[in-house]
Amino acid sequence: MSPRRLGLIAGGGEVPGNVADAAVAAGMEVFVLAFEETTDPALLARFPHRFIRFDKVGGTLEALKANDCDSVCMVGKVARPDFSKLRPDMAGIGLLPKVLAAARKGDDALLQVLVDFFDKKGFRVMGAHEIAGDVLAGAGPMGRVAPGEQDLADIEKGMAVVDALGALDVGQGAVVRDGLVLAVEAAEGTDRMLERCGGLGEGAGGVLVKLTKPGQDHRVDLPTIGVETVARAAAAGLNGIAVEAGAAMVIDRVATLARADAEGLFITGVARAGRT
Amino acid sequence: MSPRRLGLIAGGGEVPGNVADAAVAAGMEVFVLAFEETTDPALLARFPHRFIRFDKVGGTLEALKANDCDSVCMVGKVARPDFSKLRPDMAGIGLLPKVLAAARKGDDALLQVLVDFFDKKGFRVMGAHEIAGDVLAGAGPMGRVAPGEQDLADIEKGMAVVDALGALDVGQGAVVRDGLVLAVEAAEGTDRMLERCGGLGEGAGGVLVKLTKPGQDHRVDLPTIGVETVARAAAAGLNGIAVEAGAAMVIDRVATLARADAEGLFITGVARAGRT
Repeated sequence: MSPRRLGLIAGGGEVPGNVADAAVAAGMEVFVLAFEETTDPALLARFPHRFIRFDKVGGTLEALKANDCDSVCMVGKVARPDFSKLRPDMAGIGLLPKVLAAARKGDDALLQVLVDFFDKKGFRVMGAHEIAGDVLAGAGPMGRVAPGEQDLADIEKGMAVVDALGALDVGQGAVVRDGLVLAVEAAEGTDRMLERCGGLGEGAGGVLVKLTKPGQDHRVDLPTIGVETVARAAAAGLNGIAVEAGAAMVIDRVATLARADAEGLFITGVARAGRT
Repeated sequence: MSPRRLGLIAGGGEVPGNVADAAVAAGMEVFVLAFEETTDPALLARFPHRFIRFDKVGGTLEALKANDCDSVCMVGKVARPDFSKLRPDMAGIGLLPKVLAAARKGDDALLQVLVDFFDKKGFRVMGAHEIAGDVLAGAGPMGRVAPGEQDLADIEKGMAVVDALGALDVGQGAVVRDGLVLAVEAAEGTDRMLERCGGLGEGAGGVLVKLTKPGQDHRVDLPTIGVETVARAAAAGLNGIAVEAGAAMVIDRVATLARADAEGLFITGVARAGRT
């Protein structure tokens, strides 16, 4: 049975809005669980919602049940909470030891605890790509520009770097130019990583590579690019962007590819060894 | 026989000056090969010198021979050249294919080509630590502050990250706070990495970890910290700095440790598994 009412745990950025629209288009109702100063106000204006906090786990479950949600989807950027300042409710206290242990391993481990928790409570945990399937990157060049020989070598190097980092649950992105790793993404995110590439190294060219972490649950935190990513990649002088085919999200695809074409950048989907 | 006249290939920062002083104290004469707009003018004022360019390999050898150097030491930061703009001399043309191939692998591979080249030409290639031995980090806390339990866990995670990156010849540093990797160093260098940590994550604490790359020739590009590193680590809210014992350089040691003590930061030397 397909889910009837989706509890959208919505972080920042435009992805939650895209997923909400796709859910509605697929015949679902949407109830938004939002974060203060994070979730897009436009989304809150369009859907019934309630603000939640990381530590009020019982309150969150109650809100999901009271609003008749049978599934949840976590999507959009959320800042890590300051664990020293949490004042959890009873359910939160029960989950806290697991959360703290996972938090020391990385973001991916932390999100997995939440996925498992909702799973156990009987909710169907859905990935954004299950709802808005057309946002996933295809294989090969998606716009009019294709990567050149040096770009392909840079993509390969970037994939090795992101794989090594991802295995340690660090980040999902890296920038490589002419074999030199200009930047590696950790907690700062892709936009800030691209910002600092402008002044690094000599010459232009290079690629941004974004992949999921090895073993990552694809229901949370898929690598994402959009118009803004393309604009920043262009400002950094890059030749293009390589994302994991079937696993990275290209939001606002038409506008994103149009911007890439206009900037002369490629966006290409790559498959990793050992995955299809 | 100990070297008589050292050709100091001097990049930016204060390390070349420290090495020059240590060489003089050890009874060596110093001739500086300098880079335009990179090498410290104070160093140039104190020692005979000549400006060199990456592509003028023959000219560099000539300068070393004309000035009777029997050894060379490469130390200090140098920006990667824009390989598309090089106009090499004859010796440079001979070396170029190797340099280009190595450059695609990373900085470490690139420097190794230069080490091997000077080696073959009969120069003794010396590491900064062989000349200024007292700059190397010891094992354990070097100042008055020692790392706590969470710091030790963060150091361990940081070491795993830097090891994984170093194996790909990416960088030598990372910042970890409460298990979360805040930042990973690539081409931007330690100072800029620390700068961006201030605004990342919640709360304070965390460690900067700096290690050599696995398999790195210790005669070039040793990880280095100094007063500036401590100041930036403090500004980022970190608890301390962990460097590879016997392989990382603590420049201006007295002032650096004093600053760390004053800021309440630890500086500790760590040994990696498989190394002593």
